[in-house]
Amino acid sequence: MQRALNLAEKACYTAKPNPCVGCVLVKEGEIIGEGYHQRAGGPHAEVYALRQAGENAHGATAYVTLEPCAHTGRTGPCAEALVKANVSRVVIAMQDPFDQVAGKGIEKLRAAGIEVRVGVLEEQARGLNPGFLTRIEKNRPWIRIKMAQSLDGRTAMASGKSQWITGPESRQDVQRLRARSSAILTGIGTVLHDDPELKVRSGELGEAFLEQDQPLRIILDSQLRISPQAKILQQAGQISGSVLIITSEVKKGSDQARALMGLGVEVIYAPVNELGKIDLLWCMQELAARDINELHVEAGASLAGALMAQGLCDELVIYMATVLLGSQARPLFELPLAKMSDKVALKLEDLRRFGDDMRFILKPVV
Amino acid sequence: MQRALNLAEKACYTAKPNPCVGCVLVKEGEIIGEGYHQRAGGPHAEVYALRQAGENAHGATAYVTLEPCAHTGRTGPCAEALVKANVSRVVIAMQDPFDQVAGKGIEKLRAAGIEVRVGVLEEQARGLNPGFLTRIEKNRPWIRIKMAQSLDGRTAMASGKSQWITGPESRQDVQRLRARSSAILTGIGTVLHDDPELKVRSGELGEAFLEQDQPLRIILDSQLRISPQAKILQQAGQISGSVLIITSEVKKGSDQARALMGLGVEVIYAPVNELGKIDLLWCMQELAARDINELHVEAGASLAGALMAQGLCDELVIYMATVLLGSQARPLFELPLAKMSDKVALKLEDLRRFGDDMRFILKPVV
Repeated sequence: MQRALNLAEKACYTAKPNPCVGCVLVKEGEIIGEGYHQRAGGPHAEVYALRQAGENAHGATAYVTLEPCAHTGRTGPCAEALVKANVSRVVIAMQDPFDQVAGKGIEKLRAAGIEVRVGVLEEQARGLNPGFLTRIEKNRPWIRIKMAQSLDGRTAMASGKSQWITGPESRQDVQRLRARSSAILTGIGTVLHDDPELKVRSGELGEAFLEQDQPLRIILDSQLRISPQAKILQQAGQISGSVLIITSEVKKGSDQARALMGLGVEVIYAPVNELGKIDLLWCMQELAARDINELHVEAGASLAGALMAQGLCDELVIYMATVLLGSQARPLFELPLAKMSDKVALKLEDLRRFGDDMRFILKPVV
Repeated sequence: MQRALNLAEKACYTAKPNPCVGCVLVKEGEIIGEGYHQRAGGPHAEVYALRQAGENAHGATAYVTLEPCAHTGRTGPCAEALVKANVSRVVIAMQDPFDQVAGKGIEKLRAAGIEVRVGVLEEQARGLNPGFLTRIEKNRPWIRIKMAQSLDGRTAMASGKSQWITGPESRQDVQRLRARSSAILTGIGTVLHDDPELKVRSGELGEAFLEQDQPLRIILDSQLRISPQAKILQQAGQISGSVLIITSEVKKGSDQARALMGLGVEVIYAPVNELGKIDLLWCMQELAARDINELHVEAGASLAGALMAQGLCDELVIYMATVLLGSQARPLFELPLAKMSDKVALKLEDLRRFGDDMRFILKPVV
């Protein structure tokens, strides 16, 4: 199963919006076939493994990181393929929470007289697909907020100047996080201040990442203040450069919206709250409906703080440079807390050095 | 020499204001005597080692972590003692920068025909006595600023509420840092908000620390706003409870000053700058004149920020809890920097976990 998990991980940049899945076929202690789901629309992991094993699959044990599917989507049902191949035993890391599978694959196998075991290395298997699972289970993407801060918790000078707080090793690591995400979310403040492109520099990640895997880039811009010259919009019309702008309902039919659509940008209209702020939960549900699994957020203190305050953060990744930016610099999160008991507790999951910086991976304590 | 360094370290709570020194006598590959300078006024390391070796010291090699003294202070000159004992070779980690020694000990040994080598494990030997060396070389104490902060760089809520940001393991470690310091410095803001005692809880450090080793506690209070009921003043008259208040010259002869002196507190008067702030460099020179080696600072953002801004920080020790206190909470340092190029660069020397917290040891990059 560990081998199947390792295989599955190879597809972390490419399987989206599908989950990463690996499969290994074993007979008499030997691996006779293996594979992983490489790309949505392409064959599932089981199909690769069965093809490789051929007739030899008869009587083998299949190790699969996710319950084999029971429905016909873009590919045939894998549970049936396993039955046809006459495997005698299937070991499954975790049941698929997706409605059209959800135990039906397991049922099919058992009905055919195959011995089925579920729950082997389940936690690791869940860890492979946080985005897919959160989308199915919570109807919103799995949200990672990435911040770069100074030791004194500042992300930018008062002027907004913020680039190059952290070093090249940290920025390289961010490329990896961007690449595995279905989409990258930012706020209009960041676009106006930093004019980022928010693309994956694919050359740095090797062959596993292709230009067509570029995550969707999403900008929250309630007033449509973005300039048509913004770098992020420059290839908006191309497959590998998709941009989605979420603005407020009042901008529907506005000249700005039309101009943006003319550049190939998709513009959608979200409800706003009493303060004129875009309803973030609505956005997240909309993104889930668009098959966004992992959402990677690179934003300033306002948007990041608002997500944090609304519990819309599953993982916080902080790159910290050992510098002081001083007390007039911008805060990490716009998060107005009054009492000590309001403090937000986080659990440190990982801490390591990247060049002169440190990277913290933290999870909100719910 | 490593053994001599280890011995020297045993006196880190007790030798002050003297340096920690260790000595090992070796003859024919065997240790025949060793010792360390335990307490100011008591015998030096060499004396312990020579006593233990007796006549056997004849022809031995002495390893000493600091140049043997050449002058008669409270104890006789060690260089002479080594000559009298007829050792044949002396290996010295570092020359003593103290005026009355500064090479004279080495001269004396060489004049007596003893082979002398200087500079073995010198860096480690310097690391043993940062306070002593800085006092002698820079005419000011070696200054350690200790802060406890949240992940977002905050030390307290806007209300000033700050206690228990960090956990028990961090607070225990702070006891160790306090104990090795000659003095603990704080500001009146911290005294008014937190009413700390700023003593070493000696029970937690084992037998190496005695009540009589309690560091001097120093409060910067330009307006003498301290209350006579403050906890820090409660044992001010006793040997183990000495308190020094530094106020501004205008408070000389005031009722408040008299009342404090009545409690057994020493009050001294410092010049102030054009903003009415106490001249920090003057204070540091005054403390050096009082034989303060290591100065441990536990203060709020104002005093800590002012020290930082004036380059009066040799080491920054930060205990970080993985919580967010939010954007209205107090900053780490009052440090008004405008441009990115003003940022204060720090070098991370050590990073480790203490319970749920992290401890960073950083040095300003000069």
